[in-house]
Amino acid sequence: MENENIQLPERLERTTIYESDYVCLYADKVRLPSGAIIDKYHQIHYPHDAVVVVIYNDKDEILMIREKRYTVGRLEWEVPAGRVEDGEEPEEAARREAMEETGCTIKDLKFLCSYNSANGMSDHLLHLYAAKVDSESTIQDVDEVAYKVWMPIPEVKELLRTNGTKDGVSMMAILYALEFYH
Amino acid sequence: MENENIQLPERLERTTIYESDYVCLYADKVRLPSGAIIDKYHQIHYPHDAVVVVIYNDKDEILMIREKRYTVGRLEWEVPAGRVEDGEEPEEAARREAMEETGCTIKDLKFLCSYNSANGMSDHLLHLYAAKVDSESTIQDVDEVAYKVWMPIPEVKELLRTNGTKDGVSMMAILYALEFYH
Repeated sequence: MENENIQLPERLERTTIYESDYVCLYADKVRLPSGAIIDKYHQIHYPHDAVVVVIYNDKDEILMIREKRYTVGRLEWEVPAGRVEDGEEPEEAARREAMEETGCTIKDLKFLCSYNSANGMSDHLLHLYAAKVDSESTIQDVDEVAYKVWMPIPEVKELLRTNGTKDGVSMMAILYALEFYH
Repeated sequence: MENENIQLPERLERTTIYESDYVCLYADKVRLPSGAIIDKYHQIHYPHDAVVVVIYNDKDEILMIREKRYTVGRLEWEVPAGRVEDGEEPEEAARREAMEETGCTIKDLKFLCSYNSANGMSDHLLHLYAAKVDSESTIQDVDEVAYKVWMPIPEVKELLRTNGTKDGVSMMAILYALEFYH
């Protein structure tokens, strides 16, 4: 696939609508492979990558958190995730997010894959890890997480099958870990 | 879970940074459950939902497309997806996107689940379908799709395992279909 000589859409101009450390929004003038021009191709840039971590215990359960999710206005079943801060390696971010959102230290951290959450308009990139719990204490960030549950894998699957969570980032992370790590 | 009496973050004010039919960007002033205030909680609103469709044939293969993806600047292995247009039902959008991106008519369309692509900042919502191919012709939207391949399921899994695609929307759709539909 290395030598695929296929023309991609090409940027002709970029207009900055907004820039911040959290999100940037641009309107690009783009030439499509056919020569057609799109005047305003919206592009959402995330300055920081993010990490997601699926944490297992020795009883083959996954640590699920009940996230107080502002954007969708409800509690959502998720796995720990968050952005990689300045000067941080993704693995450090995974350990930090696990601690903040579950109170757990983790071990045997294993990188599984990277994925764009929505590549139609956004370059948001997440790095997925699986890990084993090492020690457990109480949730630190109670503004974000209401509580946590060690959920047996059949229950996790049932949660996903019944659409009991709509968090695609966590759904993808769990399904990927179940298929390729578990 | 219906009666969970847990306080969610609450919007105090909204500042509009940008609005369009493709994407809107807001900066919200938000009170967290602890009482702490976030002055600029960025919110990305997608005015249109999107659909994703995993198309099977009778040989247990999945129709994969090689998308000319501007946002990430490369060809990406994906399944057909796109936004729901005004006045369109999600099922119609799934049929339309299948036709535009693969030239296929589809049958036995089955809704699988809905998911937010990245609920940390964005309300972007996708509806996932599986379907069987009914008839096949050439790709219509050659600006978006370079070519298509009927890929046997073991190859699709290997593509995902090796991170040969980074399109999280398609990865999630395929893994969900393999787990709960296939």
